[in-house]
Amino acid sequence: MQFDLEKALPVLERTPLVIESLLYGLADEWLFNNEGGDTWTPFEIVAHLIHGEKTDWIPRTQIIFGEGYKVFPPFDMEGHKKESKGKSMDELLDEFKILRKDNLAALKAMNLTDELLERTGIHPVLGPVTLRHLLASWVVHDLTHIHQLSRVMAKQYDEAVGPWKQFMGVLKSN
Amino acid sequence: MQFDLEKALPVLERTPLVIESLLYGLADEWLFNNEGGDTWTPFEIVAHLIHGEKTDWIPRTQIIFGEGYKVFPPFDMEGHKKESKGKSMDELLDEFKILRKDNLAALKAMNLTDELLERTGIHPVLGPVTLRHLLASWVVHDLTHIHQLSRVMAKQYDEAVGPWKQFMGVLKSN
Repeated sequence: MQFDLEKALPVLERTPLVIESLLYGLADEWLFNNEGGDTWTPFEIVAHLIHGEKTDWIPRTQIIFGEGYKVFPPFDMEGHKKESKGKSMDELLDEFKILRKDNLAALKAMNLTDELLERTGIHPVLGPVTLRHLLASWVVHDLTHIHQLSRVMAKQYDEAVGPWKQFMGVLKSN
Repeated sequence: MQFDLEKALPVLERTPLVIESLLYGLADEWLFNNEGGDTWTPFEIVAHLIHGEKTDWIPRTQIIFGEGYKVFPPFDMEGHKKESKGKSMDELLDEFKILRKDNLAALKAMNLTDELLERTGIHPVLGPVTLRHLLASWVVHDLTHIHQLSRVMAKQYDEAVGPWKQFMGVLKSN
């Protein structure tokens, strides 16, 4: 499937509702448990998504359209820590929804054409990337974290499913 | 995490909204492509969930509380084909929502106690299982298919993300 902005936008628009529907108001055991070790909890995953809204997708798009040397600053994989400090899960979900709405409004206001989608920036690790790659990655990044959230939640019932464990592929994935 | 009906019910209640938010009204490329081979499309996954509502979770609970030999009939992994025949994705999403609502109303009407959750049935492959195992598996089954849906969708952008592919674990999972 080719990247097509009109077909990608609804996915980006829905992500806050998907994640809110999945998590809003659930018992703490669903929200603050991880997959073991230093893996992320749903709470940390939502904070990471917030950090992406603030520092990754639209800020990098703005760098592509800016003046001068178009190198993206590295993304901070610890950035979720400051985003979540002192906040509740429901506050994070609300914040993510507002940030995403504002970012998509900014994206639409750019009136991106096929030509503009071929503009490039320099990723600090990956090298030259097009705006089209960046926006497709935004969509896949959302889906990656929905994938992760459903897996982290499922694993909390690793024992509770009893003999069914062998049929549940999600419990063996990481 | 122990299975606790009060903490599990909100997850079961939200699944139709999560999946509707993820899929409703999207372009056909998101809904009718799979992961290659005989893997399922999002359309087939939703039809499979409908078949589960009709033949698996609550029907098996009723077998557990019924008279006589409490062996569950095998689940038909091809059952989604008849559920989806002649229907649109949006029709399937609406049907799933109604079936789930009715099934959870039936579940609540059973006023399940800890003692009743220990009742058993015989799974055709797994052998004796408790109602507690069955209901925990219902939750994990929902999460399994949210996990699968997000992965199937992400894989449609396997090429579109360009060099980002190496950072997107979801594109390498199955």
